[in-house]
Amino acid sequence: MTRRALVLGAGGFLGSHLSRRLVRDGWDVTAVARRPADRIVDIVGDLRLVTGDATDRALLDRLVPAMDAVFPLAGRSGATRSMDEPLADAAANAMGQLVVLEALRHHNRDARVVFPGSRLQYGRPMVFPVREDHPQQPTSVYALHKMLGEQYHLLYAERHGIATCCLRISNPYGPAQDRPDQAFGVVGTFLARAAAGEDVAVFGGGRQRRDYVYVDDLVDLLLLAVTHPAAPGEVFNAGGPTVTTVREMAEAVVRVVGRGRVVDVPWPDAEAAVETGDYFGDLRRSRDVLGWVPQIELDEGLAATWATLTPALT
Amino acid sequence: MTRRALVLGAGGFLGSHLSRRLVRDGWDVTAVARRPADRIVDIVGDLRLVTGDATDRALLDRLVPAMDAVFPLAGRSGATRSMDEPLADAAANAMGQLVVLEALRHHNRDARVVFPGSRLQYGRPMVFPVREDHPQQPTSVYALHKMLGEQYHLLYAERHGIATCCLRISNPYGPAQDRPDQAFGVVGTFLARAAAGEDVAVFGGGRQRRDYVYVDDLVDLLLLAVTHPAAPGEVFNAGGPTVTTVREMAEAVVRVVGRGRVVDVPWPDAEAAVETGDYFGDLRRSRDVLGWVPQIELDEGLAATWATLTPALT
Repeated sequence: MTRRALVLGAGGFLGSHLSRRLVRDGWDVTAVARRPADRIVDIVGDLRLVTGDATDRALLDRLVPAMDAVFPLAGRSGATRSMDEPLADAAANAMGQLVVLEALRHHNRDARVVFPGSRLQYGRPMVFPVREDHPQQPTSVYALHKMLGEQYHLLYAERHGIATCCLRISNPYGPAQDRPDQAFGVVGTFLARAAAGEDVAVFGGGRQRRDYVYVDDLVDLLLLAVTHPAAPGEVFNAGGPTVTTVREMAEAVVRVVGRGRVVDVPWPDAEAAVETGDYFGDLRRSRDVLGWVPQIELDEGLAATWATLTPALT
Repeated sequence: MTRRALVLGAGGFLGSHLSRRLVRDGWDVTAVARRPADRIVDIVGDLRLVTGDATDRALLDRLVPAMDAVFPLAGRSGATRSMDEPLADAAANAMGQLVVLEALRHHNRDARVVFPGSRLQYGRPMVFPVREDHPQQPTSVYALHKMLGEQYHLLYAERHGIATCCLRISNPYGPAQDRPDQAFGVVGTFLARAAAGEDVAVFGGGRQRRDYVYVDDLVDLLLLAVTHPAAPGEVFNAGGPTVTTVREMAEAVVRVVGRGRVVDVPWPDAEAAVETGDYFGDLRRSRDVLGWVPQIELDEGLAATWATLTPALT
């Protein structure tokens, strides 16, 4: 029987990649986006596109009952931005999750669900690689709401039997990240700068370590999160295969694009305040429980991302 | 110079007692209540009463600038109720705090503030007496939102210099708690039952230990939280002077009232799910930093509460 999936935020970076994969894998996909989205023009004939607000209770009450899997990926990105507009962040990232869970509690307790949390929940980590049991000490409103979203999901799993799986995603990158509505996405920003022949600015030397994760790997994990029998009620780090510094990533971007140059600039105050230092996750749990291992190395992922940008930019 | 205080939720149990004290101590009090409230009829001529919604941004933007102290005590009580109506709980207890903090950030960073958190933030404690550094593992949506509210306050203290102090309040009791809008308040409920000659039902033997805190002690602490120089940025347990079981408290109620009797009933499912077992807080921090020590023993507090009820009930 065809499986039915609901993708909230299908016009976003992660939502668009996931929707494309679900369509390709034969799922019956209902996609909710705020507006007709550039990122999914190629698959708009292959899914049911609902233009609407993913926090609209009446809409969710109508859509959720029929689903086998629900992906509440709608939200508002940007730790720095969340400090300026915390109420908008709360509505999108905190209330948005609670509305979905309420629709599931009332109308469909059998659906599988995945929560897209963030490595920012850990704040400034003290022990590396960061395990899932590391304390969570958010440094921004955005990160607070991601932590709250996860806690909502785990409470609904325990109390109402909702089969949810929580991911803490590090820095994702890939095609279609370079859009003006993205307040996050340092890789996309760097690619766009380099492509324009501009300076690629790293803050304070770019010495922070990261584990960038390519979006195709992440989509693999999202699918495991709603299909693997051991996923419900669990929390997993979702990171990339290799630890690299921000500067090394910027240099790889310049190398792949063949334009631009990496320059150091001092930390802006607003960025420094929410900056978390090094982050790279311990990925053993997702490997041991779900069999997930990220495959795409940074150079390969950057090349693939750049290849999709080339027609538009050259 | 007369100090100006804003009390949000002045018609509630804690807000009404605080407002009365502030008036008595010579503060210039602006009180916000959803409706003209029974609990403050005696002082309505001594303060400026604003009938409105304490989460109304425009109202707060107008009221907050002039204040020396802000008490955001409006909210929605009841852990069990929060599981049935989580969105209403979020609006009142989570968004309500963020709206106040935003008004302070934009219009008045010099005001002192206190956050009325809950001992429920700890969930089911593992080590007694519970210290402020005990892990927080909420078992209800209400407790999650109290934890979030505290985190908002601490983030605004660190990032925006808002002089806020966070309390984790155990089980408060006192006059005027026995009202139909109270989903909490086991002491008030027991007093009303005993007064009517009805059975006072304790769940599962009533063996859980608690440290009931009399409202006058709590009001002392609220005032220290917005006046003591060492309070900003700190978190304190706010509990009572003595550890007692729920059954012992019920028996004290029956003794004070001279009517009713204590009976055991099995745990209702909804109550059992959010029940946290024993709780009694370590009160050394509030003593050492603020010089606060709760004074009113349970028998004395119950007698004082009963004395205020007697005219109405007999």
